[in-house]
This record gives sequence, structure tokens and C-alpha cells, in this order.
Amino acid sequence: MKIAVLPGDGIGPEIVTQACRVLDVLKTDGLPVETEMGVLGGAAYDRHGDPYPEATRQLVHAADAVLLGAVGGPQYDKLERPLRPERGLLAIRKDLGLFANLRPALLYPELASASTLKPEVVAGLDIMIVRELTGDIYFGQPRGISINELGEREAYNTMRYSESEVRRIAHVAFDIAMKRSRRLCSVDKANVLETTEFWKEIMIDVGREYPEVELSHMYVDNAAMQLVRNPKQFDVMVTGNIFGDILSDEASMLTGSIGMLPSASLDENNKGLYEPSHGSAPDIAGRDLANPLATILSLAMMLRYTFNRDDAALRVEGAVKKVLAAGLRTADIYQPGCEKVGCAAMGDAVVAAL
Amino acid sequence: MKIAVLPGDGIGPEIVTQACRVLDVLKTDGLPVETEMGVLGGAAYDRHGDPYPEATRQLVHAADAVLLGAVGGPQYDKLERPLRPERGLLAIRKDLGLFANLRPALLYPELASASTLKPEVVAGLDIMIVRELTGDIYFGQPRGISINELGEREAYNTMRYSESEVRRIAHVAFDIAMKRSRRLCSVDKANVLETTEFWKEIMIDVGREYPEVELSHMYVDNAAMQLVRNPKQFDVMVTGNIFGDILSDEASMLTGSIGMLPSASLDENNKGLYEPSHGSAPDIAGRDLANPLATILSLAMMLRYTFNRDDAALRVEGAVKKVLAAGLRTADIYQPGCEKVGCAAMGDAVVAAL
Ligand SMILES: CC(C)[C@H](C(=O)O)[C@@H](O)C(=O)O
Ligand SMILES: CC(C)[C@H](C(=O)O)[C@@H](O)C(=O)O
Repeated sequence: MKIAVLPGDGIGPEIVTQACRVLDVLKTDGLPVETEMGVLGGAAYDRHGDPYPEATRQLVHAADAVLLGAVGGPQYDKLERPLRPERGLLAIRKDLGLFANLRPALLYPELASASTLKPEVVAGLDIMIVRELTGDIYFGQPRGISINELGEREAYNTMRYSESEVRRIAHVAFDIAMKRSRRLCSVDKANVLETTEFWKEIMIDVGREYPEVELSHMYVDNAAMQLVRNPKQFDVMVTGNIFGDILSDEASMLTGSIGMLPSASLDENNKGLYEPSHGSAPDIAGRDLANPLATILSLAMMLRYTFNRDDAALRVEGAVKKVLAAGLRTADIYQPGCEKVGCAAMGDAVVAAL
Repeated sequence: MKIAVLPGDGIGPEIVTQACRVLDVLKTDGLPVETEMGVLGGAAYDRHGDPYPEATRQLVHAADAVLLGAVGGPQYDKLERPLRPERGLLAIRKDLGLFANLRPALLYPELASASTLKPEVVAGLDIMIVRELTGDIYFGQPRGISINELGEREAYNTMRYSESEVRRIAHVAFDIAMKRSRRLCSVDKANVLETTEFWKEIMIDVGREYPEVELSHMYVDNAAMQLVRNPKQFDVMVTGNIFGDILSDEASMLTGSIGMLPSASLDENNKGLYEPSHGSAPDIAGRDLANPLATILSLAMMLRYTFNRDDAALRVEGAVKKVLAAGLRTADIYQPGCEKVGCAAMGDAVVAAL
């Protein structure tokens, strides 16, 4: 199990350090892991002048899985577009063919009151959003800014999906639905956009291979509403890159504790990049305030999806549940009556609970 | 004041009937209104085989403002794309040049508990979303489904904005911000899409003409999150057509009472189309269950924005507040302890309160 570890920027190094301690415990207990460190995003720009440098490219191609902290920071805002940290993220996704982004929005019972929604609306919330990650308007050509026939400046991007791109993400979503409640909601804007009408048609077609899965369809504007009105109606949702970007962030915030949410981005062979759903939080970087649990839970996803080690994944997830049950909280999820701890102490607790 | 009245489909005719009764009272009291009825959407398809027929086109071009109920219904789902009700809506918007869609998300204190969010998070919520309505990926060319170079089917749409399109919606948004809290948040995905990077650049440029307005920028995924986390941080938001479609629906659902929310779609000269933010609700159509207040409040927006009659607008809004204070509620906003009324009785009450 070769894991490339890319701490990234901001709080990235701190949270990844704690996840690596968890990995060390598993290794001591016999898990055949090898890790190698690399740079991505701003840290890579600082060292190599490129947010996704060749050295990192070789490292991640040679690895079975990638653990990423987070990328980005205000010091990079003034850089030209191709040099910015998020370009590194987009580049590694595309280069490794990580087309399937899995983003769970799960509410931990101990943290229920962190949600801005009423407890009865979110109690037990457990949604899995499957977002296509290497197509759509993120990568579609043509794109740019130019002068039009009227001599006026205009800008454009292209939303684009080929049949095979939609088919493969449909299979991922249906497979996940089969392992969960067998309900899948595909989100589109088929009443306006041909691309998503096409998406919907292919979802229906792939659905014929999964007669046990109940497939439904919802317009993206309605989905954004329904996530607020009654989020528990959803189990697995599948959608394109840009709608998935928006809806998965909205859904994660329903839990009120985005510091708890992991994510996986997988290729055709379940090689994957694993990272917390939250960002690099430059404002609290280096102050031992960050919550390492989303990164530790991303490691659990890696064990499950890339290495097929459900046992090890459950062990890590169980340790996280234990520290929550014991009342330990980093600042982002702190509530009166709990014990406030820093990033490293939270890592200590998870290691102990393992 | 020539008003074209288009009841549309589903509950449209019922709610528009009540709004017209309000208009009749104002007319009796001296407001120089003339109304003429027309068809749009499914009703227009049924009568003329076209969701935006020539007769309607002439009617709305001759009018100063349009009052619309809602369009759409399951009986039209099987029609070819160009014949579907929502095509009528897109066509009238484009044909009349209604580029500025104003969608308030306002929480009425009497209805605070209808929200799925905690009262302290939404109490006093009052956001105005300014959505560009005639550009972006809704109308951009090229679009379609075809066979690509690899012989594979693919579909595409084009997100596109010209400089003048962004400038004019920027002016609308800044003007509204000047009349409110002087805070404007422009929503984009400038880290990924050139079109919205262009959008952001022009917002900043137009902002130089409004030194008193504090302009901020937010990525659309973060905006979708922040609307859940802390919606009261927002006052006026401005964004493109597709992001506006998603965010305005999300924002309206924060109030929990979408049956209360009006909308306006304006052209360069403040000619406008006014309609409730909710849909045609075919499931309750014809049963006197619909809430006519969003339509009545849309009429108030018409009086304010197209006819510059703040006095009359305030009178209508005051009457709505009175019936709410008196405890009258249609089924969608009903709470124990209130008096449940139907659509017509709610109209009676507003007319009496006027
Ligand atoms: C940083 C940005 C390019 C990225 C995206 O839009 O995909 C982020 O928002 C995400 O969801 O991982
Ligand atoms: C019906 C549909 C075409 C329309 C849109 O997407 O603009 C609707 O969702 C709206 O927001 O008015």
C-alpha cells in the first residue's frame, strides 16, 4: 500500500501529521503501508514554481492512493491563474483521472446541535453525494475571454459531457446506492440545459442494469431547496461537477461541522485521492487549532475504497466516534460542557482510542 | 398603467384571481389601471399549440407590466422541449429583455417558526438576490447534442457573458444596494471559470462608480454554504443566471414559507414581469388551497418598481402584514393556534385589510 502524502497549505500540514500518526499505528499493527511525502498547491509553487510539479506527478502516479491536506492561501491570490494552488488540485484530479468524487454529509449524533437547522430536521442525516469531477464546465473547451463580432469583450466556458463520462459516474453512483438504501437521486437542469438532459437520459439507461435501485430526478434549483427543507429525503445523490461543487458544500454545511467531513476522489480502478471537505483555513494555520478528524476520516475512506480494508476503516472510524463520545472537541465543534483540545491533542486521543 | 395578466397553469389562475381583486380595489380608489388577460405556458400550448404565442407576445409588448401566476404541469412533461411550458417563460423573459430578476428572501416574524433553521439563525432575515436573467448558460450558443471526433455522443452548453450584459446587471445591483444597506456580495466561481472571473472584474469596475457601496466577492460553493451557516451576513447578492437560479431557491427556502415570496424581472426601463417565487403546484390546483400572498406581494413589487408608486406598494404590503398579524394562514403556512383559510378567503381578508 503505497500512499503519497501531500500536506498542502494552511492547516494542511497539521491535520495530515495527525492522520499519519494514525497510519503509523495501523502499520505497527501489521498494515503493509509505505508513505512518501510530496508537495501540491501553494507549497509546491513555493518550492518548484508550479502548483503540480513533475516530482509530485511522478510520486502520485507511482502511489496507490494520495492523502491530501488542503490547498490555498491569500499569499497566492495575486498569482497568475495557472500558478494558483487550486490549479494544482484541478490538475492532479484530471491527470490521475479521478472522476468520482464521493462526499458524505453525515451528522454525528454528538454534534447534532452544531447544525443551524432544527434537530428534528437533521437528526440522523446521512447523505452521500457522488459528484463527477473531471468533466463538465470545469474542463470543457472552448473557454476564454475574447472580442465578439460586435467588437465587445465577452467571456465563455463550455459545459460538456460525453456519453462514456456520464456512464462511468452513473455506475459508481448506482453501485454505491446498491450498498446503501437503493435510492438514487440524479440532479440536473434538464428543463433548460441539453447537457443535463443528456445526463438524465443516460442515468435512466444505466438504471436499467440496476432494477433494484429506485432512481429519481430533481432539478438543481429544487435540490438546493429540498436540502434545506427536508434533507433526510435524500440518500445517494449524483450530479455533474459544477452542480456537485455547490450542492455538496451546501449539504456538508447542514451538519454544522464541516471539520468532520472526509472526501474521496476515485479513478476507474479505485485508486484515489483523499482529503477533508473543508479548506486550508489560513486564518488558523500553525496555531494547533485545526480539527484533524476530517483528514483522519479521509484515511478511513482510503482504507475502504482503495485498499478494500473495511476492517481497518471501521477501526479508525470507531476511534473517532470514541473520542467524540468522550467529549473531546476542537474549537470548530466545541460546545459548553465538552473538553476543548488542540489539533495534536485530538490526534493523541484518536491514537489512544485505536 | 397597462397590465397584462397571465394566469398560467396549476394554481396560477386561483392566485392571480386574488391579486386582481386587490388591483380592483386600488382602481376603485383611483389608481389608473387597465388589465388585459393572456395565456402563457401550458395554458397557451393548450389554446394555441405554443407556450408563448403571438397573441401573448403582442399583448405583453403593449403592456407596461406583466402579472404572471405560474407555469407547468405534469401533463406537459411528454411534449417536445420547444413546446413545454417553461419554454414560454424563458421566451417571454428573453423577448422582453427582462435581464434583472429580483428575488427577495424575507422572513415574516409571524412565520419565523416555519423555517427549518433555528430561529436565531433566521430571525430578521432580509436578503435581496439580484439574478441576471437573459444571459449565461441559459441562452449561450453553441448548445446541443452531437457526435464528437471520437464518434461518441456528447452534449454541451455555453456559459457566456458580454461586458455590457454584466455591466447593466451590476448597475441594477449597486442601485439596489444604495437603497438598502450599501453592502453587495457578488457570487462567482472565478477560481475555475473565466466567465465569472470576467464577471468579477466588471463588478469591481462598476463598483468604482459606487464608492459608498461595500462590494465583496464569494465563490458560489461557499455562498451555498454560508446561506446555511449564517444567512444574515448577506444583504444584497448579485450573480449570473444559473448560480442565481440555485442560490435564490436555496435562500427562499431558508424562510420556510416560499408561498410568501414575490419576484420581479425587469428590463432596462423598469418594465417588468412579476410572479410568485413558487411554482404551479399542480397537486393542489383548483382546490382553493393555494397561498395567494406571494402573487399579491408581486403586485406590490410591480407598483414599486414599474409604476414608482411606493405608496400603493406599501398599502398592499401593509394589508398582507395585517392578515398575517390577525392569524390567517393558508395550509402551506398553517400553524396550530392560527385560523386556516383557503385561497379565496385569504384574498377576501387582504381586500378587507386594504
Ligand atoms: C478549489 C476548487 C477548485 C474546488 C472545486 O471547485 O472543485 C473546491 O471547491 C472543491 O470542491 O474541491
Ligand atoms: C422553470 C425554469 C426554466 C426557471 C429557471 O430556471 O429560470 C425557474 O426555475 C425559475 O427560477 O424561474
